[in-house]
Amino acid sequence: MQHHPVIAIEMAALQRWCKGDPDGFLEICAPDVVYFDPFLPARLDGIESLKAYYGGIRGKVVASRHEMIEPHVQEIGNAAILTFRFLSTRASDGAEIGWNCTEVYRKESGDLWRIVQTHWSLTAGTTIPAAE
Amino acid sequence: MQHHPVIAIEMAALQRWCKGDPDGFLEICAPDVVYFDPFLPARLDGIESLKAYYGGIRGKVVASRHEMIEPHVQEIGNAAILTFRFLSTRASDGAEIGWNCTEVYRKESGDLWRIVQTHWSLTAGTTIPAAE
Repeated sequence: MQHHPVIAIEMAALQRWCKGDPDGFLEICAPDVVYFDPFLPARLDGIESLKAYYGGIRGKVVASRHEMIEPHVQEIGNAAILTFRFLSTRASDGAEIGWNCTEVYRKESGDLWRIVQTHWSLTAGTTIPAAE
Repeated sequence: MQHHPVIAIEMAALQRWCKGDPDGFLEICAPDVVYFDPFLPARLDGIESLKAYYGGIRGKVVASRHEMIEPHVQEIGNAAILTFRFLSTRASDGAEIGWNCTEVYRKESGDLWRIVQTHWSLTAGTTIPAAE
């Protein structure tokens, strides 16, 4: 499914993210969300953990350009598994970073889609240079 | 859910994987499986792509020790989202590698669980040394 509603939901949150605003994601995460990224020593469990983590980087992540690549959605009842690659260009120094991402959304009452699992990692060949 | 059936299914496949046998995973993947890992430049789509990839590393991945850490399952109807960390010790040189993993399983007819999405990445602080 290339036109599933979660793709537009994800893109809207990513646009805010790339302007330093993590609230776009926090607003669409479920209370029981779990989260992996390459900077953490362990999984984060629950929205409060994610709020604390994102609170610490608010305003610090700014991308001058970004692109979602090959979004793909698998639907299983009220679950939608969105996978895509993501290219972002760091505003401060132009470093280009390639990401793999898996988001699992759950359809809640009122047809609201909420993220219950996020997994960000680096695509092969990508390293994150220290910020200048 | 800490005692969900997919945890035992995953552990059995991992035990075979750590002996160089990828077929434990291939046998429990659905035809529409998608796959990310840190060695690939893009997502693999479909079981045939995964078979070709795993075929090339058959017998080459051997871990002398491995451990699944904090497995966690979220169930949404016929979907089960399994997240865990994984520590493996490479048999050839004792290198210890920390992984993050997200597996999405779908319950098929006959109550068979099949993987429809796999995402492996490196936990923070892990680098993969060149094999000796």
